[in-house]
Amino acid sequence: MALRARGLYDFNSENPGEISLKEHEIVSLCSEKDIDGWLEGTNSRGERGLFPASYIEILRNDNVSSSFNNNSSRYPSGGSETSNPPPPSFAPYPALPQTHPGTPASDDDWDDEWDDHSSVTDEPGGGGHYTNYEGNGPSTYSISTASMPRGAQHAKSSATVSRNLNRFSTFVKSGGEAFVLGEASGFVKDGDKIFVVMGQYGPEWQENPYPFSCTIDDPTKQTKFKGMKSYISYKLTPTHTQNQANRRYKHFDWLYARLVEKFPVISVPHIPEKQATGRFEEDFISKRRRGLIWWMNHMTSHPVLARCDVFQHFLTCPSTDEKLWKQGKRKAEKDEMVGANFFLTISTPAAPLDLQDVESKIDGFKTFSRKMDDSVVQVNATLSEFARKQIAGFKKEYQRVGQSFKYLSQAFDLDQQSFSAGLNHAIAYTGEAYETIGDYFAEQPKQDVDLVMDLLALYQGHLANYPDIIHVQKGALTKVKDSKKHIEEGKMESQQADGVRERCNIISFATMAEIQHFHQIRVRDFKGQMQHFLQQQISFFQKITGKLEEALQKYDT
Amino acid sequence: MALRARGLYDFNSENPGEISLKEHEIVSLCSEKDIDGWLEGTNSRGERGLFPASYIEILRNDNVSSSFNNNSSRYPSGGSETSNPPPPSFAPYPALPQTHPGTPASDDDWDDEWDDHSSVTDEPGGGGHYTNYEGNGPSTYSISTASMPRGAQHAKSSATVSRNLNRFSTFVKSGGEAFVLGEASGFVKDGDKIFVVMGQYGPEWQENPYPFSCTIDDPTKQTKFKGMKSYISYKLTPTHTQNQANRRYKHFDWLYARLVEKFPVISVPHIPEKQATGRFEEDFISKRRRGLIWWMNHMTSHPVLARCDVFQHFLTCPSTDEKLWKQGKRKAEKDEMVGANFFLTISTPAAPLDLQDVESKIDGFKTFSRKMDDSVVQVNATLSEFARKQIAGFKKEYQRVGQSFKYLSQAFDLDQQSFSAGLNHAIAYTGEAYETIGDYFAEQPKQDVDLVMDLLALYQGHLANYPDIIHVQKGALTKVKDSKKHIEEGKMESQQADGVRERCNIISFATMAEIQHFHQIRVRDFKGQMQHFLQQQISFFQKITGKLEEALQKYDT
Repeated sequence: MALRARGLYDFNSENPGEISLKEHEIVSLCSEKDIDGWLEGTNSRGERGLFPASYIEILRNDNVSSSFNNNSSRYPSGGSETSNPPPPSFAPYPALPQTHPGTPASDDDWDDEWDDHSSVTDEPGGGGHYTNYEGNGPSTYSISTASMPRGAQHAKSSATVSRNLNRFSTFVKSGGEAFVLGEASGFVKDGDKIFVVMGQYGPEWQENPYPFSCTIDDPTKQTKFKGMKSYISYKLTPTHTQNQANRRYKHFDWLYARLVEKFPVISVPHIPEKQATGRFEEDFISKRRRGLIWWMNHMTSHPVLARCDVFQHFLTCPSTDEKLWKQGKRKAEKDEMVGANFFLTISTPAAPLDLQDVESKIDGFKTFSRKMDDSVVQVNATLSEFARKQIAGFKKEYQRVGQSFKYLSQAFDLDQQSFSAGLNHAIAYTGEAYETIGDYFAEQPKQDVDLVMDLLALYQGHLANYPDIIHVQKGALTKVKDSKKHIEEGKMESQQADGVRERCNIISFATMAEIQHFHQIRVRDFKGQMQHFLQQQISFFQKITGKLEEALQKYDT
Repeated sequence: MALRARGLYDFNSENPGEISLKEHEIVSLCSEKDIDGWLEGTNSRGERGLFPASYIEILRNDNVSSSFNNNSSRYPSGGSETSNPPPPSFAPYPALPQTHPGTPASDDDWDDEWDDHSSVTDEPGGGGHYTNYEGNGPSTYSISTASMPRGAQHAKSSATVSRNLNRFSTFVKSGGEAFVLGEASGFVKDGDKIFVVMGQYGPEWQENPYPFSCTIDDPTKQTKFKGMKSYISYKLTPTHTQNQANRRYKHFDWLYARLVEKFPVISVPHIPEKQATGRFEEDFISKRRRGLIWWMNHMTSHPVLARCDVFQHFLTCPSTDEKLWKQGKRKAEKDEMVGANFFLTISTPAAPLDLQDVESKIDGFKTFSRKMDDSVVQVNATLSEFARKQIAGFKKEYQRVGQSFKYLSQAFDLDQQSFSAGLNHAIAYTGEAYETIGDYFAEQPKQDVDLVMDLLALYQGHLANYPDIIHVQKGALTKVKDSKKHIEEGKMESQQADGVRERCNIISFATMAEIQHFHQIRVRDFKGQMQHFLQQQISFFQKITGKLEEALQKYDT
């Protein structure tokens, strides 16, 4: 029997695939399961398509109405009770790659997650991360020249009315708009408070007073259901508890989705890309582990992310305590202080920021991040090709030189006179040395280039996050400008405009702090990685020199 | 008026382009100038073609007959007055590349020689040397896989009669056959005597009691005829006289032709190849000078070549004394102790060699030299490609890495915060370091690979000489075997056979001594050059390491 529902508000379709609904209109539903807040059904005019789950109530046999708005925590009906609820902001299409698909997984389908299957198809709308960086191991370096897709860059904020009609705008879906308009509300516990302070270079996140790090070791293949399903388990050891916990990729994936949902202007590091095949191959496991280590490093380095409950639960919950894990999981999924409400938790210095100055700095960062993204893409492509050349061409050249020397020594060996023997041996040794040098070239990228590329992949993720972050701040700024106009036109009370301005100040403080944090870890990470790269390159050339010196000595005997 | 001549003996054409003549037959000549002992004319049957100049006498107005056999010194009618003179052994076609075109240049056309023209076409039959090694400088390395052409390898010695009918056989044209058959005769002055002694490893040339070397410096462009003609002059300074002499490539070329004519079983080092274009370009001059230095080194290292009159004349005659030069030149061109007569100058130890043992050793050397030639060709091709890769591909890769680092530092420069500046500078420096390393790669082949290839080119020349040298000894050995058979059949006196055997012993001593000399300079040369190559490669990689260490230090400031 087809499930029916009744329209609660008028909904006008604005995009292909959507259908319009009227208040009280009866629609038949294809399924009562929503996809990111959208339902599919047929309206009274026979049109089939999508509409927001929050705009209807399901008509059950017992006539109990039920709202599907599982995003209620993100769009609390704070200040504007009378207006329609905003439609869900995560569009089912086109998939916006900058937002990780955050379908709250129930405990029951936990084991059906992607990572358990030996061969899978891509999740719809997922897997958009790291697309430029295929993790097929060092033997198949690919060249990427295209930048990350940036759905959000194309979203234009409409500033002519108070509410942004573009429901796909990051400003809307992040909760930024709702917060600025004073629609967010919630009880902020002391422990949840996040402080922005004035540092040497401007606003910054208050340092984590209890800094820690976390190692990721021993990727181990595990099986369950009598070997039917296999997965890799990683051993996590946080320094602040020293208790080990075993976590799988799907746990990281779940955590990532929670973080993206919760923190609108924080650049959550992307987790390493999903991969359909070869997941149990050594190169892939090693590469994923390196990616997870970088990810963990960015998580523990971030004053806000490092301390948040869901991350702490992930780090500290014993892997043997299934019950405790599920409790924490449910709690995280029901967290109310996400999206718009996250901004409520931010405490800023008393003196407000000069918004004009903020705007100029944000514009500067936008230019910076674009150029950095371009250069990261270029360095990535160059190093990828450099690695490929070392593994193939350079190796081949040195090996050919080695082989030809060996061939020469074989010819010389035909002269059996004693005064010739020493030379023959030395040339043969030289040949072997050059073959070995060929191998050195082929093995080297694993020691240096690959690690730089891991870092670049992580930063490509961050740089893909920033357009959204900037967009939220820009949206808030636009609202301040609008409110000034509204006051001039007598459409708004100055008290209301002050509120908009205060809340924009909070978003600006958070954005500036996040940008400052980005610069600091960027300098730290690139300095460290460039040093490591050069150290490895120096060792490499020294190793070659050593081999050649060995060969040279053979001519003296 | 057509010049006429009368046949002195019957001549039966055996090759395309030749015509047959009868004794007393009248032929008309196209020119009275012979080409390597051959004349062109028309016989009484109207056939036009070539015949040996020594088979006819020219009919002049004054009826004085004149023999054109300017090779009379090579083919003196010593022991067998009644038999026809052998036809000239250097065929005008096909050009045998192992014999340098040895047309005795008159003093008059001295200045019209190849090297004086700014752009020239190849001399017919000339320029067959070094064909595998194009001297277009390091920017145009070519790959050579084909071996040197070896006309002599295809010549088969016919051993069924006493005289070899194959007039293209090296055995015949070297004078080896004439000598073995006792047809060589001449007065050997004490100073011309060449001694083979028994050394540690068998027969060897008696060491030069007055060893010397000779430097080749200051290649200088000279002009004459009011700038109409240009050439490069090299300053030669032999250590035993310390008197400088200026010599041109054409002087080397003339000397080379004299040496090849004079010494049948000595491997005369090939002079660097001729080149039609770019003769005044720096790379070419530098390469030719290196080739001449190697050549000189082999000349002065050889106990027989180093001491011979024509070489001494070349080294010591003051370049200002035109008259003295011409005297020595004419004397060398009239030298009677060349070819067959050269063998008369050789003194051997009293105890004759075991010819079976010699045969086995010569066969061993033949196998050796073939395999060495193969491997020299392979090393040459590999190193040529290796150099090309370093100049193009390797350079490009390192420069691209450098450029991408520089691009990254430019992006980072957009963040003007002070804590970022040091890193930006260090990354920019790293970028420059990688660009410099790219240049190092491109410049390196000149320091090492090119020099090994110079050596290989010289040895390719030697290895192209050896089939002829082996062929002469094999021919002599065959004559000994034939004479044994002839004695059994009662066709030969044992005294005559003893003579053949004694003369074969002399040729064998000389050949064995030459082979021994080859092995000794080979070991010396390859040892030295491999050491130099490795030392240069070590310096190269140390230079790279140094550059990278400089870059690494920038991250500490």
